[in-house]
Amino acid sequence: MSETITITGLIGTTPRHIVTSEGLPITSFRLAAPRRRFDTQSGKWIDTDSNWYTIVCFRQLATNTAQSLSKGDRVVVVGKLRIREWETDDKKGTNVEVEADAIGHDLTWGTSVHPRTPAAAEAGEEQRAAATA
Amino acid sequence: MSETITITGLIGTTPRHIVTSEGLPITSFRLAAPRRRFDTQSGKWIDTDSNWYTIVCFRQLATNTAQSLSKGDRVVVVGKLRIREWETDDKKGTNVEVEADAIGHDLTWGTSVHPRTPAAAEAGEEQRAAATA
Amino acid sequence: MSETITITGLIGTTPRHIVTSEGLPITSFRLAAPRRRFDTQSGKWIDTDSNWYTIVCFRQLATNTAQSLSKGDRVVVVGKLRIREWETDDKKGTNVEVEADAIGHDLTWGTSVHPRTPAAAEAGEEQRAAATA
Amino acid sequence: MSETITITGLIGTTPRHIVTSEGLPITSFRLAAPRRRFDTQSGKWIDTDSNWYTIVCFRQLATNTAQSLSKGDRVVVVGKLRIREWETDDKKGTNVEVEADAIGHDLTWGTSVHPRTPAAAEAGEEQRAAATA
Repeated sequence: MSETITITGLIGTTPRHIVTSEGLPITSFRLAAPRRRFDTQSGKWIDTDSNWYTIVCFRQLATNTAQSLSKGDRVVVVGKLRIREWETDDKKGTNVEVEADAIGHDLTWGTSVHPRTPAAAEAGEEQRAAATA
Repeated sequence: MSETITITGLIGTTPRHIVTSEGLPITSFRLAAPRRRFDTQSGKWIDTDSNWYTIVCFRQLATNTAQSLSKGDRVVVVGKLRIREWETDDKKGTNVEVEADAIGHDLTWGTSVHPRTPAAAEAGEEQRAAATA
Repeated sequence: MSETITITGLIGTTPRHIVTSEGLPITSFRLAAPRRRFDTQSGKWIDTDSNWYTIVCFRQLATNTAQSLSKGDRVVVVGKLRIREWETDDKKGTNVEVEADAIGHDLTWGTSVHPRTPAAAEAGEEQRAAATA
Repeated sequence: MSETITITGLIGTTPRHIVTSEGLPITSFRLAAPRRRFDTQSGKWIDTDSNWYTIVCFRQLATNTAQSLSKGDRVVVVGKLRIREWETDDKKGTNVEVEADAIGHDLTWGTSVHPRTPAAAEAGEEQRAAATA
């Protein structure tokens, strides 16, 4: 089991959309999730720092995401966490990725108009099945 | 700690919106989350049954939700689970409620246009702080 | 997708263990998860009410759970939530069940000695695979 | 809000326990959570790679954890995810930490004997309150 995670945060980069030579749509962007703690002195919640994630999605969700999301949008993301160590000749690092199962504009921050994709039902079913398997 | 839960599902009732005499906006609706299992015979994922939840939200999220959501919409909901036993003179039952921290249209199923609420930032901050405390 | 949930709580009933005629071990018990909120007047966290769950587990986890857990123990449980409406001739109600993927004594409340089951690795793998599918 | 995460995995290092000069007990260890996917060719679940986390805990949970856990143990961990970028003069990297709210031996893999800590109730309450705030 990969760890499932839910994040509410702020899109930090313009979403990048590609279609592979096999015809697979992929969208990715960086997401900042502020960490908050209750400051007992002021009696208020304050943002301390942010967790940064790379969000990746595929298929119909990738297509819709590319048409709907912009840098600065507030969203809720559900997906599977993947922590990847990488290494090149002279550098190494750690990528923290979430492969999204669902993404939506967070209605805490605004309203939302939601025209459904034709045949979305079927596409969604397949996508979810593939994502779950 | 209440249990935090994330649900992707289908809105099953027209959202009900009220404002209390103290001026608190509240929106609620029923949400169906299909349960799926992999059918080894057919090699496909099939819906077996649904978990039904009563979703409740407050303040700015309630106002925006009432303007944005309709019966039949696909959404992702994050919130705190509350299981409440109730009893009247001749009946008793169990309510399964989620007090939502965030709600969004699930982009797996369609695109989304998202005009932000003026002063949403501040409202959202307060709401989230209140919800977390 | 069923909703995955994590609960830390108190076992409220003596765990019931059966083995079906097909040889499947099943253990179940009731779990109370206190709901807490920050009381701004006293500056302390207070328990308000409890979410009650029926926890069910199968196979090796059921066998080990029956040997390890007692009423009053503090545990952490991870599993899939199932909300089931039931009806008999004269009554109806709602069951809130969690089919557990993992259960452990919560080390916040005590130490733990953990002799591993022989061949647990294999059993665990199969169990998890079955639970995930 | 930090992201809450639940992990079932294998302890990869001997837990390190310290007590600060202020008297705060801290325990930390590395945890490997195998990622699994369903291999449609073989019809089996296979481990592909692992997510690695640094688990940190404080107070009574740290004390009990140090006495109870060893390298190689299978555990379930619930906590808050913190992704930290760090940089020294000549290197930089990313730490993926979980500040644990609860930890337990996973009963999928063995039984568990659980003597409760005297006054654990109170300690646990305070710890949880502090952790949540």
